[in-house]
Amino acid sequence: MSGKPALRRGATDASAPVSGDRPVDDRSVAARLFAIIDAFTTPIAASLTLTAIAERARLPLSTTHRLVAEWVNWGGLTRQDDGRYALGLRLWEIGVQTPTAHNLRTIALPYLEDLFEVSREHVHLAILDGHDALYLEKLSGHSPVRIISRVGGRLPLHSTGVGLVLLAYAPMDVIQAYLGTALQRFLPQTVSSPDELRRRLAEVRVQGVARMSDEMTVGSSSIAAPIRDSTGLVVAAVSTVTRSGTPVDPAQELAVRVAAQGISRALGYRRPTS
Amino acid sequence: MSGKPALRRGATDASAPVSGDRPVDDRSVAARLFAIIDAFTTPIAASLTLTAIAERARLPLSTTHRLVAEWVNWGGLTRQDDGRYALGLRLWEIGVQTPTAHNLRTIALPYLEDLFEVSREHVHLAILDGHDALYLEKLSGHSPVRIISRVGGRLPLHSTGVGLVLLAYAPMDVIQAYLGTALQRFLPQTVSSPDELRRRLAEVRVQGVARMSDEMTVGSSSIAAPIRDSTGLVVAAVSTVTRSGTPVDPAQELAVRVAAQGISRALGYRRPTS
Repeated sequence: MSGKPALRRGATDASAPVSGDRPVDDRSVAARLFAIIDAFTTPIAASLTLTAIAERARLPLSTTHRLVAEWVNWGGLTRQDDGRYALGLRLWEIGVQTPTAHNLRTIALPYLEDLFEVSREHVHLAILDGHDALYLEKLSGHSPVRIISRVGGRLPLHSTGVGLVLLAYAPMDVIQAYLGTALQRFLPQTVSSPDELRRRLAEVRVQGVARMSDEMTVGSSSIAAPIRDSTGLVVAAVSTVTRSGTPVDPAQELAVRVAAQGISRALGYRRPTS
Repeated sequence: MSGKPALRRGATDASAPVSGDRPVDDRSVAARLFAIIDAFTTPIAASLTLTAIAERARLPLSTTHRLVAEWVNWGGLTRQDDGRYALGLRLWEIGVQTPTAHNLRTIALPYLEDLFEVSREHVHLAILDGHDALYLEKLSGHSPVRIISRVGGRLPLHSTGVGLVLLAYAPMDVIQAYLGTALQRFLPQTVSSPDELRRRLAEVRVQGVARMSDEMTVGSSSIAAPIRDSTGLVVAAVSTVTRSGTPVDPAQELAVRVAAQGISRALGYRRPTS
């Protein structure tokens, strides 16, 4: 739509020197405004000083000062008592309204709660976004097994239960592109060969469920199942994450499958009768 | 911080004519960008055409076209297959990171889940923002009583359980300012006189709990209790919403109080020993 080059999420101009003579910054005002917000996400920072924002956004301090004030006026940033800045509630308020996240979460939540009640373990809802599993919801008890997922967080497709499900049912070009990337080996158990990953994806499609163990976090295992919309497309995945090593309770897998089917049904999916 | 006038949320220039000669638009580029997003929230729209965005944001179509493209590039807006625009996942992803919403929700969620399990009714978590109760979380079963609250939504302080609690423990200047506003009477039972509201707020402070019945939605009652941080300040409220008319189960009130205390304790609050 626009003739302007797209500003990639969190991207900085790799050709620009970190200090010294700055090249001409040809970013639009909008791109600079977005760079201010991206400063809080790459990597995640709960709060930043004006100087830190300027450095991360690669903007002069004066420009940063002016643009931060615009965000504060709108409510997208908030100035804390200690003078540091943090993402503002206005962004949260707008963010939770985004149709994909809001609609799917609202429909899925009662089923996720049911699953949480019977399993007493972490329950995840995730969608495919680019080459990541994006976590829309996470329910956790008081002292569950420690894992790194978080609402709004992203994790790789080949090393998480929900990711494996999302990739297994992704369009073939997405699968091919993903198999062509370097598959990071987080732990000895992580699948990191394209051929092995291809076999596991086929297994997921045959069984309708993904089982992972010690592939992202030591000591945690997950069972994930696909959620389909009214046209039969897989639009999300649901999982539970339990402690590894304890014998897998067959009821756990059944519970995940039932939750996935319940959400699919609520989205209008009807199983083919033949 | 900025010498520029603040753009109020969703505000439009009341002095500007709706059509005909437009006055000079002295909004900054940032303010115009924010007006594009505000178009989706006042009132809430899941998707809008380019023309509708232009009208709501009071911007020429050409400017709207250019600024929408900037939002799309960043991921803040997404163009649907039907050509309409919707809020994009990037906004959700950033929004759920805002410290206030993220931290409080993460700490409170296990307690909200406990409360939901014992009550099987709507469970709310809300904070005070301006003159509204802003809903951070809502857990609902499959067929609960119908109510209008939603995550990210706002409701008045004098007609909701969480609102009454938040107002009761608000700083005196906030209470005075709120009592000075017109108290909308949604239903016959809604408190709409400042004197009566003042009495009820005192009652809430004495009892440590607010009980509402048929004051916002016909047929729904709520019980709400305050959540305190480590310094003893009330920072949020938790409630359950049940069907009116059925005799109030005293265990319900106890469950809400226990959940509120659990969250307060997790936030570092310790009850005074004397």
